Amino acid sequence: MYQYKDDTFTLHNDLYQINMAETYWNDGIHERLAVFDLYFRTMPFNSGYAVFNGLKRVIDYINSFQFSQTDIDYLKSIGYKEDFLDYLATLKFTGNIRSMQEGELCFGNEPLIRVEAPLIQAQLIETMLLNIVNFHTLISTKASRIRHVANNDTLMEFGTRRAQEADAALWGARAAYIGGFNSTSNVRAGKLFNIPVSGTHAHAMVQAYGDEYVAFKKYAERHKDCVFLVDTFHTLKSGVPNAIKVAKELGDKINFIGIRLDSGDIAYLSKEARAMLDDAGFTEAKIIVSNDLDEETISSLKTQGARVDSWGVGTKLITGYDQPALGAVYKLVAIEDEEGNYSDRIKLSNNAEKVTTPGKKNVYRIINKNTQKAEGDYITLEDENPDAESPLKLFHPVHTYKMKFIKSFIAKDLHHNIFEDGKLVYELPDEQEAQAYLKDSLSHFWEENKRYLNPQEYPVDLSTACWENKHKRIFEVAEHVKQMEEEHE
Amino acid sequence: MYQYKDDTFTLHNDLYQINMAETYWNDGIHERLAVFDLYFRTMPFNSGYAVFNGLKRVIDYINSFQFSQTDIDYLKSIGYKEDFLDYLATLKFTGNIRSMQEGELCFGNEPLIRVEAPLIQAQLIETMLLNIVNFHTLISTKASRIRHVANNDTLMEFGTRRAQEADAALWGARAAYIGGFNSTSNVRAGKLFNIPVSGTHAHAMVQAYGDEYVAFKKYAERHKDCVFLVDTFHTLKSGVPNAIKVAKELGDKINFIGIRLDSGDIAYLSKEARAMLDDAGFTEAKIIVSNDLDEETISSLKTQGARVDSWGVGTKLITGYDQPALGAVYKLVAIEDEEGNYSDRIKLSNNAEKVTTPGKKNVYRIINKNTQKAEGDYITLEDENPDAESPLKLFHPVHTYKMKFIKSFIAKDLHHNIFEDGKLVYELPDEQEAQAYLKDSLSHFWEENKRYLNPQEYPVDLSTACWENKHKRIFEVAEHVKQMEEEHE
Repeated sequence: MYQYKDDTFTLHNDLYQINMAETYWNDGIHERLAVFDLYFRTMPFNSGYAVFNGLKRVIDYINSFQFSQTDIDYLKSIGYKEDFLDYLATLKFTGNIRSMQEGELCFGNEPLIRVEAPLIQAQLIETMLLNIVNFHTLISTKASRIRHVANNDTLMEFGTRRAQEADAALWGARAAYIGGFNSTSNVRAGKLFNIPVSGTHAHAMVQAYGDEYVAFKKYAERHKDCVFLVDTFHTLKSGVPNAIKVAKELGDKINFIGIRLDSGDIAYLSKEARAMLDDAGFTEAKIIVSNDLDEETISSLKTQGARVDSWGVGTKLITGYDQPALGAVYKLVAIEDEEGNYSDRIKLSNNAEKVTTPGKKNVYRIINKNTQKAEGDYITLEDENPDAESPLKLFHPVHTYKMKFIKSFIAKDLHHNIFEDGKLVYELPDEQEAQAYLKDSLSHFWEENKRYLNPQEYPVDLSTACWENKHKRIFEVAEHVKQMEEEHE
Repeated sequence: MYQYKDDTFTLHNDLYQINMAETYWNDGIHERLAVFDLYFRTMPFNSGYAVFNGLKRVIDYINSFQFSQTDIDYLKSIGYKEDFLDYLATLKFTGNIRSMQEGELCFGNEPLIRVEAPLIQAQLIETMLLNIVNFHTLISTKASRIRHVANNDTLMEFGTRRAQEADAALWGARAAYIGGFNSTSNVRAGKLFNIPVSGTHAHAMVQAYGDEYVAFKKYAERHKDCVFLVDTFHTLKSGVPNAIKVAKELGDKINFIGIRLDSGDIAYLSKEARAMLDDAGFTEAKIIVSNDLDEETISSLKTQGARVDSWGVGTKLITGYDQPALGAVYKLVAIEDEEGNYSDRIKLSNNAEKVTTPGKKNVYRIINKNTQKAEGDYITLEDENPDAESPLKLFHPVHTYKMKFIKSFIAKDLHHNIFEDGKLVYELPDEQEAQAYLKDSLSHFWEENKRYLNPQEYPVDLSTACWENKHKRIFEVAEHVKQMEEEHE
């Protein structure tokens, strides 16, 4: 597809990363170890939880991280000098990456991924990591919300044509599956990720034959499992009666799974179609629905008593329609000084929510031993051990008067070691396992955190040491700014 | 990146396409010529116009259309039989494709692409064509809207990290450029598409040095062109003064291009920063701004008198944030009958806007010779010649009383022959030419059609013959449904 056989994702990078890398290299600080956190600030879709995803793609990317010859040639053509390019050409990733596992529940302002690597490497992987995790996490979250309202109904991902280019369709299908969908229509996703595929026929086939009855019959001649799309001409007057007619005629020569509705008033049509199928003796036939569905419309249709067994969800899932970007960021939180000791770093901002939390940190899920429910997530500095504290004090990092003490708990480390010294040390669970892991994780959360509308906020707290460290750095920077101000006067 | 070396986009397909293909093949109608139109129904972003894009990617896809060995193996593994797979394995595209050119202004309900090919082939390329054109057209449209409000300011595409996976970042960068942006931050897009790249440094570099002044100096030691990001600690007290200090100290050793603001009240900060730069003698230094910008915020900032020279636009451009899917469809409009004559086909719907326009059609832009402005787009049946009609009657296809007659006009055929009998016959203009073509096309439209808010609707009309043909088919289908209804009673 591309004119360069050695096209890589290493150059799939913002130009400023290359310029910063060059600055570090030129100044000789490029190999100092630095720690970056990847996290998002606010919950997507006003959701009570999000679902981390993208690690498979991150691992593939890190494993293949290297500038190719034509990458280097291109950088030379836009003005970079050979001394720096000679260095870049040999660069591989040699650092450590800790990350949540795919299907983990995650929340605002907690590190999803922690990168500890030579500064230049950690800087150069930022763009692609965000490009991956932002999308994969967004779609798994959306899928899980839809799964939550659909309860045990079948959910099919149908979004490829409306996805934002090919990668979004492919990886979005995988993200939807991990988020709880049963299948995808994307055949390539089925092949590459070993996930179930589904689909029968479209309006075009009915149009091609010009006659619904003939079209259904022709389909049934070759395909045992039959779902007939019934809204090409008129759902109740033509589509459903023709489906029933063909199913009756062919009897057990086919497996008449059911019908699909793709337009019109689904609440009304599904009830009418159900009655027609039942009257004809097809009480086991399923009603499958598609047409701009999401968690809100599915919930509404269920409230109206729509008789739907299976939902095909496209556009609004695959694009995260009501919030098409997660907005995760990647921030420097510590860097080695000249003596090789970590120095914590902070970024202030006119926007208060953009202030970062400095320091090399871990994140734990505090699970109450009595209820087996999660009490909150707890972010600590590297050397803390929350297990040793009892009772453990949890307090809101902004509204600090909101606090509680937990006695009998498990502190579950949410990070896994993925890369150590550039080597992959993690065995990635497959897509089925990731989906199952998410289901199990959700069982540790209260319904109040999971409902799709106006959920209760789940606590993400800093340890006392982490909170104090952050505020110490804020005052240090404020003092530094004051000095700058006086100096510039 | 993928485990299969022969991974193709041919399998990047909805499963139902394979099932329909199998039905046609089994029934022996798979090689009948069929005509499909690719079009969208409603204008994205409530825009007065859209910008067609995606043809480069479509051409690459069609040229490489073939199932690979592992594609066939996979289809076998999920139950397809060998006779059909043997046929699929040899399939290539042998049809005709006509399309608008990249950068063409386009509107709802007009064919952007017309495919005329053996039914099975035309069916199997649907999903990928939509996946491509939907996204590319969406982003070029968004970019053009932003270009319209930004007037002659510099526009930079900064969205890679927020794009929906890698392809969206890459092709979105290209689409933004064609839509009128000056550059992208995505280095790979620069390499693959030969479009300008831009970017300097991020907050991380300032944090890494811990001191803004030092960080700016270190950057300037290696880079002649300098834009300093000034909001890591405090924009006006620290960032701008440090940028000025470094620019003064280094004098003409660097090319001090300017500063970048990435947070806070841009209207206020840009004016204050402008005054500080001017006072320091840097009247030519530019102010570059980024932070969740789109056509609305840029327009608002300009109204407020913000002093901004250059805009970096990310999330809201690269995702088409306020409407992240275009919703284009691909509909069968004609198919050969047993005698090899075309039979027009229609699809009805409970949703009136979903009724298709049958027949093999062309689309013309009617340009008034006196004003050089476009009067409307005019969709005809294949054998019509609008040039021969004078006066030409244009009437609204729904509100038919809205009509006008044009005497002195040029009817510009908006379609180009791209593939003939499966062979590429079109020389694709490069990205610079596509951008220039869009600019020229826009000059033929009134400001009232182009304004970003509440634009005047541009007419897309059917010829009398096309309109009459559509209504004839509607009545035919209605009659057919009535017969079905009577039969099923």
